[in-house]
Order: sequence, then structure tokens, then C-alpha cells
Amino acid sequence: MTRPTRDISLPRGVSDLLPDTAAKIGYIESRLLRVFELWGFRRVITPNLEYEDVLTIGMGDELKGKAYRFDDRQTGRLLAFPPDITPQIARIVATRLASWPLPHRISYSGRVLRQTEMQTGRNREMFQAGVELIGLNSPEADAEMVVMAIEAMQKLGLDDFKIDLGQVEFCHGVMQASGLSGVALRELREAVSRKDTSAVALVLKSNNVSPESSREITALPRLFGGCNVLEDAKKVTSNPRSLAALENMRQVLEILEIHGVSDFLSIDLGETRGLDYHTGITFEGFVSGIGEPVCSGGRYDDLTARYGFDAPATGFTFNVLNLLAALDRRPELEASATRDFLLFNAREDRRVVLEVAKLLRLQGYSTARDIICREYEQSLEYARRMNIRCMLVIGNDNESYRAVRISDGVVVPVDKAKIALPELMKFIEESQGDR
Amino acid sequence: MTRPTRDISLPRGVSDLLPDTAAKIGYIESRLLRVFELWGFRRVITPNLEYEDVLTIGMGDELKGKAYRFDDRQTGRLLAFPPDITPQIARIVATRLASWPLPHRISYSGRVLRQTEMQTGRNREMFQAGVELIGLNSPEADAEMVVMAIEAMQKLGLDDFKIDLGQVEFCHGVMQASGLSGVALRELREAVSRKDTSAVALVLKSNNVSPESSREITALPRLFGGCNVLEDAKKVTSNPRSLAALENMRQVLEILEIHGVSDFLSIDLGETRGLDYHTGITFEGFVSGIGEPVCSGGRYDDLTARYGFDAPATGFTFNVLNLLAALDRRPELEASATRDFLLFNAREDRRVVLEVAKLLRLQGYSTARDIICREYEQSLEYARRMNIRCMLVIGNDNESYRAVRISDGVVVPVDKAKIALPELMKFIEESQGDR
Repeated sequence: MTRPTRDISLPRGVSDLLPDTAAKIGYIESRLLRVFELWGFRRVITPNLEYEDVLTIGMGDELKGKAYRFDDRQTGRLLAFPPDITPQIARIVATRLASWPLPHRISYSGRVLRQTEMQTGRNREMFQAGVELIGLNSPEADAEMVVMAIEAMQKLGLDDFKIDLGQVEFCHGVMQASGLSGVALRELREAVSRKDTSAVALVLKSNNVSPESSREITALPRLFGGCNVLEDAKKVTSNPRSLAALENMRQVLEILEIHGVSDFLSIDLGETRGLDYHTGITFEGFVSGIGEPVCSGGRYDDLTARYGFDAPATGFTFNVLNLLAALDRRPELEASATRDFLLFNAREDRRVVLEVAKLLRLQGYSTARDIICREYEQSLEYARRMNIRCMLVIGNDNESYRAVRISDGVVVPVDKAKIALPELMKFIEESQGDR
Repeated sequence: MTRPTRDISLPRGVSDLLPDTAAKIGYIESRLLRVFELWGFRRVITPNLEYEDVLTIGMGDELKGKAYRFDDRQTGRLLAFPPDITPQIARIVATRLASWPLPHRISYSGRVLRQTEMQTGRNREMFQAGVELIGLNSPEADAEMVVMAIEAMQKLGLDDFKIDLGQVEFCHGVMQASGLSGVALRELREAVSRKDTSAVALVLKSNNVSPESSREITALPRLFGGCNVLEDAKKVTSNPRSLAALENMRQVLEILEIHGVSDFLSIDLGETRGLDYHTGITFEGFVSGIGEPVCSGGRYDDLTARYGFDAPATGFTFNVLNLLAALDRRPELEASATRDFLLFNAREDRRVVLEVAKLLRLQGYSTARDIICREYEQSLEYARRMNIRCMLVIGNDNESYRAVRISDGVVVPVDKAKIALPELMKFIEESQGDR
């Protein structure tokens, strides 16, 4: 065996996903797509290559510098690999689906690439699975997104999670009412997003902000917590834009109450982060023990208009690698990474082993043949390493085969007529207790 | 509604896959991955970004110029988007899996990008789903690939297809025995691959090729057809390299005979195409009516060694978009693109409709709510356009709802207690004959 003489490493921020991990990702992705499907969402597949200027139309400033770009050999125009899927769907809605009746319920599952700075250590490749609900400005549509996110997490077996709700219009209203602009406004925003009350006070003091507005702004950093935050906010708010935003949030919360998911919710009205296309209710999902959100989304009523089709919209996306981190050790996920049978042929002739393999596959069991010639013990070790549950030995005895349960090495004879019948599967699934 | 003022088109050679098509692709992909899983193959997910020089190690000359490349902002090193997944898997086997016992049974499903010339009109984005079987040089491994390809096509409902088998070693042996090199050899290869017998004769005549070798070469363009081609080839072949290749193919065909798939096979020993990493048995699958192959693969015993890990290997990949073209009008595929219910709420209160939606989803039916306020007829039209099978009207009557079968407009009352029970589903699946 030779050794590589060159550097054959991967760039930072991308990974090879090996079988156990890939199986878990496949499991998560199929569960998510199933929830989306049950809610009537239909998947689209967006291309991995677009004109850079077309993608940019739908991107916030935060994302604009992050696309990988290259010249198109065909046209000389700049191409890019999409750093976000939502702008692609906005483009599709405005072009390919423009004559279809609204609303559109669209889902997707794909990968995006984003340039990152080396020191951040962040992933450059992200796995996103999400939905867009386009053509509805009703609070019910916002509620639908939140309920779907919660249902998807529950279907994956998560229970220890929170959905953090925001309303970017509320914050915009407060900022607008301050009358500030330029540097002062930026300083204010930053202080609010850090929840830095003394910095907020400093900005207000050094500018000529009205008492009503000052009261709203000073309250912002503490307007987070349970659903009572809404009442607290109403008391301090006087500008009409923010009041309308609060009323909208109240309606959404009312519908979420009917859905019976209020216990999962918290509110943060001081939240100003997020992709800059959001225009109303936003939310992020957090799982206990995982720092980054596993999902995020919200209303974006202006985005499709940038592509020439004016329609209200909302949506959200799961970050699948963050979900994987949250779920990694769950038994359902572990199970998704096993295989059922390895067939060890001790006969001269290969007819029987091929027949048995076919039979097991017909019953739905994943079955690999050990074509390589090696010792019995080596094959057992192979099965153990490869996460295979049972090695079936096809010997010269004409009556029966032998099944070796890999978890504990217990061997039983298997009547030929009973291959792949419930008894055998029951044996494999049992374990002899402590190994 | 505004209209776009800019060009928001897609680059040539890539496409948006809309819901009906995306559903069909999802169906095809999940069927393929299921077959791979049943044969004991485990999926890996390879990154969409690699160092260009690392990818190039595993690419043939044909692919080398086709990767999209860009400078890494982090390191200044050249990055590329993979134009083929097999070299990535060779790298993974040589690095991440080097200490694992052989063989590796690895599957993948992903998308690659290739630069194309505008005039060819070919896809720049390809959807590939395939397997690699690494660590086995046995003819059984080659046979396993062919049988899996056939089984996958059968599972998708195809029957009118052929697998065209080649053996690149046979052709290499014949070429080597000719003693030709340089321009003469290239001319010979091209004439053979065009099956242009008079051009072949011309090359032989103008060079000093031995009678034995001339006999082999002259035979090449007609060495295709049924399994009897093998016997014909043996009669005209005298060089040992080609004879060994024929014996290898005989063994593979013998195993394929045991698998009962001989009727699907044809042989082409004059085939010289293919990614230049192949070293033995190769094959392509063709479906009647589709010009391009739906799958292709073969043995590549030298590829992993380029990454520092010397192991024999074979594998194949499906071109999923070509499969889609072959399958497009099949009923199973059409069915994969429908949704079950649209709920039309005629009540003031939304509690009931949310309950019904939840119930239907719990039973596994895809169910969208028509949140938008519109007329009954408009909602029906929406359901029709959106490929929804049944509209369920939740009225103020406390006893029953109404189900409208979208295919023919027939309406039946549905007892509230029997929502989502077999009777309702039976009604939806029936149709009133001629519409």
C-alpha cells in the first residue's frame, strides 16, 4: 500500500460525511420533507448555478459578499453558487409560477455555500431544508410556519426546545419614531441588539429624542421573555407602526394558542438580527445545549417584488447540521445507520448464497455478500466494524444455515425454510443483556 | 403587480425543477437509494467544494477542464466545484476510511457541475446516484454492479432496457499488440470507436502491422451484439492481454447467468469511450427511446492508488435526469406529484378546520388549508391547478363535511366521525369514468 505524497486534505469549513453521519442526515431530511409534505408543501429543486446579478437581487447586504463567484466561459457573465435558497424561490415564483393561483406552498432541501473568514471556523457548506408560503399576509400563515417548525422538531424526537419570536416591524417603528438617522441610529441599533442598556441611555442622552420615544427605546432591551412581554410592550409603546406590529403578533399568538404550542414560545421584541429581507414576524428555534439556532425564518413581504412579482410571503429553514448536533445520540438515529445481513458463503458453489441474498432483499433487509475470501473470524470482525447486525453463514449442511448475532456473538441454526421470517428477526433484535 | 425590468433568466444548461418534476426526482432518488441500501451499500455525502488540485488527481483528461474553479479567499489556493463524485469517494477511501476493513460498499446521491460549450446544449448540472464497491477484484463484484443496475431499473418500472457490456482491457490489448503509437494509434482508436471499417483498413495498410494483429483490429468494429460475441472474439484474438480480458468477461457473464439477467445484456468489445480511469469490465444502460445512457460504470483498479491507497474497485452511476426522461409518463411517478386534501373553511371559527387538518395529517394525508379568503369556485380551481385530489368543505352543519373529488367534481357528504377513514379514501381514488 502506498502513501499519499501530496496534500489531499479538504478545505476548512467543508466535510466528508461518512456513512453513519450521512445516514442520520438522510433520516433527518426525509422526516422534515415528510412533515412539509403533510402540510401540503411541494418540493422544488433550485439549480446550483445562477447569474450572480440575479441572485444578488434577492440577497441582503450580509450575504452579498459571501457567494462563490466565477466567470461563465460561455457568456463572460459572472456566475455564482447560491449562498441562500429563498431568493431562488422568489425568482421562481416571479417567473415560472407567475400565472399560477396563490398561495404557493413550496419546500426545498439543498446545500448552499458561503464564503467565511478562516478565523470564524464556521461551515462554508450548509444543509438547508425549509418551506416558503407565498401569497398570504394573514397571521394564520405566520402561525403555520411556527407550528410546522415545532411539529418537525417533535417528529424528530426533540422536546427540549424553544421558539423565539420577534417582530421586526416593532423594532423598525421604534427606531423610526426616534427621529435618529446615520451614525446615531446605527449606534442605537447596535446597543439595542447587545441589550446594552447603558449604551442605549448614552445615545438617547446625546441626541434630542422625545420622552415617548425614549421610553420605547429604553424598554426594548428588556422586552423579551414569556407571552406577557406583549402586554409590557403595549404599555410603553406609543408609535402607530409598532402598535400595529404588536397587534399582529397578538393575533399570531392567539392562533398558536389554538394549536396548543404556546409552551414552546418565548418572545424577543428587541431582536434586530436576521437576513435583512424580513418584514414582520420572525422566529428562531433553539435546542437545549446547542448554541446556534436549528431553524429560523419569518415574514418577507418585499422579496418577490424585487423579482417583479409583488406578493406577501413567509417561510423558514432548518439548519440540518445543527439539527444533527442536537439529535446525534438518539437511538432512532443510530438505528438508521445499521445494515441487516452479511452473508458468509462456506460452499463451493455460489448459487445458494445468491438465492438467499435475493430472498432477504425481497423481504426488505439490507444484505451484503462477503465476496472476499477470508477467514470466518475476519468476516465477523468486518461485520462488527461495519455496523451489520447479523452474519448468516451458508454452509454445506443442506438443512440449515447459521445466524451470528453480531452484538453478542450468539449463534443459532436457521431452518432454510424460515429465512427472513419473524423468528430470525426477533433473534437478531434481542440481545443477551450485558455483552 | 409589477413586471421585472431586468434579465432574471437562468444560465443555459441549468434548470429550476418545479414541484411535479421535483417530486418525480425525489421518487426516483429514493427508489435508487433503497436498492443500494438493500444490497448493503451505505451512503456518504461528499462536499460541494474541494481543492482543485486534489480533485484533479482523480479525474481523467476529459473532465479536467470542466470543473468550475475559483480562488479561495482564505488561502489563495484554487477551489473547485466537483464535476464527478467518484474521485471524491476515492479520496475518502484513501484518507478517512483507510484503516477500515475491506470491502467498502458506498453509495451516493448528489449533484455535479460541469462546464460545457454553449453549442452542445448539454446540462451543466447533473444529478448522479450511484455506488462504489472498493477492495474486490473478483468478477462477482463486477456482476454485482450490473445486477444492481438492472434491479434498480426494474424497481422503477422499466422493462425495455439493455445493458451494454465492454472490457477496456480487451481493446487495450489489441491496440498494444498493434505496435502502433502516436498519431497512427490515435487515428486507429478513433476509426474503431466510429466502427469505420474502411478507415481502420487504411491505418493498417499504411503502417507495418502484423497479420495476427491486423486480424484482431479488423474484427473490433464488428465485435458487438449478443453473448456469442465472446466466442467470435476468442477466435480472432491472439494477444494474451486481450485473451485474459475475454476470460474475465466470460466469468462475469457466467455469474450474470446465475442471476438470471442475461436477456438484458449485449456486448460491445469495440467500445473505447468512457472516463479514462476504467481498467476492466465497463457498462452502460440504455432505455428504449432515450439516446443517452441512463447509467454507466465499470472497474477502476488504479484510481484509489492515485490518492495513496491501492485497491481494486468497481462502481456505477445513474444519470437521474436521463432516468426521469425515460420514466416521465408512468403512473407511479405521476402519483408521486399529487397532494391529498385542500381544506375549505366556511365557518367563522378556525378551531374545527385546524382540528380536521391535524387529524388528516396524523393519518398520513398531505393536507393544506386554504387560508386565503376566496369563493368556493376559485378554491376548486386552485385545487385543480395544484394537483390536489380532494377539497374538503368544513361548513356550519354540525353533522358532516363535504368532500369534492377534484378529478370529476363529484361531491359526497362525509360523516365527521369518519374523516380519513377508508371509505373517504376509496371515494377519492375512484373516478366517475369519462369526465
